Amino acid sequence: MPAKEVTESIATLKTASKNEPIAKFLGMKLVELKPGYAKITMKLKPEYQNFNGYVFGGVIVAVADHAFAYGSNSVAYPSVATQFNINFINAAGPEDTLTAECNVLRSGKRAGVSEITVKNQTGKLIAKATGVTVRV
Amino acid sequence: MPAKEVTESIATLKTASKNEPIAKFLGMKLVELKPGYAKITMKLKPEYQNFNGYVFGGVIVAVADHAFAYGSNSVAYPSVATQFNINFINAAGPEDTLTAECNVLRSGKRAGVSEITVKNQTGKLIAKATGVTVRV
Amino acid sequence: MPAKEVTESIATLKTASKNEPIAKFLGMKLVELKPGYAKITMKLKPEYQNFNGYVFGGVIVAVADHAFAYGSNSVAYPSVATQFNINFINAAGPEDTLTAECNVLRSGKRAGVSEITVKNQTGKLIAKATGVTVRV
Amino acid sequence: MPAKEVTESIATLKTASKNEPIAKFLGMKLVELKPGYAKITMKLKPEYQNFNGYVFGGVIVAVADHAFAYGSNSVAYPSVATQFNINFINAAGPEDTLTAECNVLRSGKRAGVSEITVKNQTGKLIAKATGVTVRV
Repeated sequence: MPAKEVTESIATLKTASKNEPIAKFLGMKLVELKPGYAKITMKLKPEYQNFNGYVFGGVIVAVADHAFAYGSNSVAYPSVATQFNINFINAAGPEDTLTAECNVLRSGKRAGVSEITVKNQTGKLIAKATGVTVRV
Repeated sequence: MPAKEVTESIATLKTASKNEPIAKFLGMKLVELKPGYAKITMKLKPEYQNFNGYVFGGVIVAVADHAFAYGSNSVAYPSVATQFNINFINAAGPEDTLTAECNVLRSGKRAGVSEITVKNQTGKLIAKATGVTVRV
Repeated sequence: MPAKEVTESIATLKTASKNEPIAKFLGMKLVELKPGYAKITMKLKPEYQNFNGYVFGGVIVAVADHAFAYGSNSVAYPSVATQFNINFINAAGPEDTLTAECNVLRSGKRAGVSEITVKNQTGKLIAKATGVTVRV
Repeated sequence: MPAKEVTESIATLKTASKNEPIAKFLGMKLVELKPGYAKITMKLKPEYQNFNGYVFGGVIVAVADHAFAYGSNSVAYPSVATQFNINFINAAGPEDTLTAECNVLRSGKRAGVSEITVKNQTGKLIAKATGVTVRV
């Protein structure tokens, strides 16, 4: 997108993030947003544990997917995800605070590709993901 | 695993599912579990919407991942996910009830592969996913 | 695409397949093509083995990717792959003949999603894959 | 694996690479191998083009998968791939020389996760991939 549109998208997204239902529900916070980059934090809760006592994989996906949504929309608004792949590298503990960072690798007229990392408060790598978005 | 162990795992998992924190938090219900197969339902809520007014992708992943966890653990307990890939096929509405079904394609000594479909209450395909689990 | 365009694409693809360089080089044959579906066969060769004596994963990907290209282009021509994910389920032997079948799950204005299976001559499942294509 | 085993695996792999059937057939060369890292080069040929005149995706996968095999086996020998995901970022030309680099992100007792990049001779990013391996 032209630079002016990117600036407008970022302003729109920052405003939208303040009242986003799922972000409130899960406790995810947009802490940085610039063209092609987004950073999200999420304080985990005991409710996020699964039957093994681990943090549910879907919660780790959530923070990664949230960074992915903001990062990809910053340069191609509005876009939706069509595909998402994640590798779980290290387990997260129920007391951790996770930080997800999304970098857009490619943003084309029709589709884009992004890369996302999830780390805990000590910088340990929890997961790496990639995803494809499509303009709508 | 030998048949006896599979039977025991399924009994353990059914009991565990009644008090699983994340399942309560997100409203996910285990409705069927047999060797190599699990079915989960989830009634969506307005809180699950993202800034576009769509149901957040991470919520669709959650129900798929939950079926994946039960299905894979039914034949290889305890196992954890190391990788998960999903394609979002059709959008889900905030009033929908989603059903995720997991079928284990392969369960080896060290790793397993599963396939998951997510449909809404009319049978419309919402997402398809695959994942790899590792014995722990 | 409208039905007339689909018919034309299929005719174009069938002609193109007869002189496709990579298909000749690897011995891949288009044996069926209809809207949203393609079937490819490939006779394996001793040259396709890797250092472990297994058939190289990239060769199994090749036959899957080839079916994917024809299947997705049959309903959205011309399209290119932006993402591809594969699970290797059973090993293939160097004497096997592989058959890959692609089914298009969704074909939209900008992007499409397909699913591919690879089996050997006895019907044993060798691999399952999914991929995303973008119109060009 | 213990350091001694890693050293032995690397020596074994370097020797094996000199007579690997698929490497000769496709023109792939192991140019660097150290614990958790492998680098492969591949000079493309006109035979690698598909019906669109692009380099066939399966060929780009091949060089990535080859680096993946060496990288993952350097620290966990013998291992085989169970899953592989790739994003095609920029098209490759039929005259290009591709270089694939694999870095192992995690190597556990049962499974490992690796990350692979493919670039052309000018350093342009052609593809990024990840994969899961299992010890055999």
